[in-house]
Amino acid sequence: MNEKLKELIGVIDQALKQLKIGDDPSNLYDPIKYILSLGGKRIRPLLSVLAYQLFQEGYDKILMPSLAVEVFHNFTLLHDDIMDKAPLRRNQPTVHEKWNENVAILSGDVMLVRVYDLLLQADGSIVKEVISRFNNCAAAVCEGQQLDMDFESIDNVTQEEYINMIRLKTAVLLGYSLELGGLIGGAGEEDLAHLKNFGTLMGIGFQLMDDLLDVYADKDVFGKQVGGDILANKKTFLLIKATELAGGNDKKELEAWVSKTDFIPEEKIRAVTAIYDRIGIEAITREQINFYFEKGLGEFNKIRVKEDRRKDLLSLSGFLMKREK
Amino acid sequence: MNEKLKELIGVIDQALKQLKIGDDPSNLYDPIKYILSLGGKRIRPLLSVLAYQLFQEGYDKILMPSLAVEVFHNFTLLHDDIMDKAPLRRNQPTVHEKWNENVAILSGDVMLVRVYDLLLQADGSIVKEVISRFNNCAAAVCEGQQLDMDFESIDNVTQEEYINMIRLKTAVLLGYSLELGGLIGGAGEEDLAHLKNFGTLMGIGFQLMDDLLDVYADKDVFGKQVGGDILANKKTFLLIKATELAGGNDKKELEAWVSKTDFIPEEKIRAVTAIYDRIGIEAITREQINFYFEKGLGEFNKIRVKEDRRKDLLSLSGFLMKREK
Repeated sequence: MNEKLKELIGVIDQALKQLKIGDDPSNLYDPIKYILSLGGKRIRPLLSVLAYQLFQEGYDKILMPSLAVEVFHNFTLLHDDIMDKAPLRRNQPTVHEKWNENVAILSGDVMLVRVYDLLLQADGSIVKEVISRFNNCAAAVCEGQQLDMDFESIDNVTQEEYINMIRLKTAVLLGYSLELGGLIGGAGEEDLAHLKNFGTLMGIGFQLMDDLLDVYADKDVFGKQVGGDILANKKTFLLIKATELAGGNDKKELEAWVSKTDFIPEEKIRAVTAIYDRIGIEAITREQINFYFEKGLGEFNKIRVKEDRRKDLLSLSGFLMKREK
Repeated sequence: MNEKLKELIGVIDQALKQLKIGDDPSNLYDPIKYILSLGGKRIRPLLSVLAYQLFQEGYDKILMPSLAVEVFHNFTLLHDDIMDKAPLRRNQPTVHEKWNENVAILSGDVMLVRVYDLLLQADGSIVKEVISRFNNCAAAVCEGQQLDMDFESIDNVTQEEYINMIRLKTAVLLGYSLELGGLIGGAGEEDLAHLKNFGTLMGIGFQLMDDLLDVYADKDVFGKQVGGDILANKKTFLLIKATELAGGNDKKELEAWVSKTDFIPEEKIRAVTAIYDRIGIEAITREQINFYFEKGLGEFNKIRVKEDRRKDLLSLSGFLMKREK
């Protein structure tokens, strides 16, 4: 990531640190400060700031509202971690582990209220638009999380259903982050649509890349265990596509590994990866990823701003598209 | 309750029924429709409508925003029921029992988003004010719920701490319901403060009345088991006050009943009630209730509107002050 982007992330981090979230009762507010302090790349508010800078200089008007998308993102992580019974988040205990489930539910709730406090800092003339579009995004994110949970007990999830789920669960928030920057920057309706589509399409690509990296990442670069999704039978793009395309012995073998409850982890990872290799899942997934990246960049190119204004968002997109962990 | 109030509740119920909450995925949206269909007196939106009618005719502009306080109230019930592990709500299975905990968390989250959709239906010129005041109220409600949970593991809760907890957990939402009606009705800053204080003070009185009725209600009129709070050692105003005032044998006996784990329910209820009787807890609680009701009505009287406009809100307050279940 280039120096300017790093600097902006520093500004966002600083603003997040100084955010007045509340103090008393501490069991309500400490978990919020805790989860926000665990770090993360702050990509979403950075997208808001960069989208704003397509149309305006600096970040005066966008900085505080941009924190809304970061706080919302962390709110979804907090509640999702309860639902997934996840013990760790960014290598630290999750809130429901460090405190308890009730604290995690309630801290999350007040976090969502704080999101709206941040969105309210947009100019009065556009605040209705800012919140109404956010609401569509937030409801979509909840729908995506529900579909993801529903999929756990459904046998046949199609590629189309899967793409729709990740679009809702993770991609639309990237779309909204850009839309928010555009809105506050004064973009017109068409540019707003392009920004939103750009973020959503790229977001689908990023999630597919996550799926791919879980199996095909260089384990020395990748932060977590390679093959975690395979062990958990997670219905990722790779497994859905392999289930669809595998024939004969591969099909039988894949089904056997998915239903096996007693196995040596490395063996399962090796065997399923070998099936993926025989079907050519890596290339198929990369093709899909590129399809969404290209479509996304096509939307970006339609935005009517001067070429020299585009470089930061392009640079960030390039960084995210090339990431290996 | 008089005919006009009943009619308005019918209008509110109808609008709630027609509310577009969402359909797909059904595991996300069915629980919301379910909890909203369980009924309830719809007091909060009724307060909004009546506060609006202090300043305006009809309910055109207030009806949709008034549903926000009802949806928010039900959102808090949904999440509180998870935290309390409550099996029943209005004599029906709670959402986490009927579906599961994850569904209950996530449906609640999207319900809170829908609250803001409803608040957004206020006029553009006041929407920032409407939402910003709502946010203060919503954060306070979460703080109250957290304090209530914190109190479970604290030995000495003072009367002051208890009143502050119920003010946050239940009373401020009544205050906001009235404030919302005033805001949309065009009330000035001072009248808004009086409305908010009126609702909050009355709300404290209503909660104290709940505490009292749990022990001293006529069990043929009261909907639920008399003495439930005593059995659960719930730190109500009655128990806190009795712990403070009991002396000698009463003190020892009360402490013994609170720490006893093996007992015959009716016997515990009878014994603790007898201690309450000896200390005169009923009269002390009634005095407190009247203190808050009088202070509340004092705020109501300061609102600058013509006398004939006051009668519906007064009539509803009278109904709520006299309730026996």
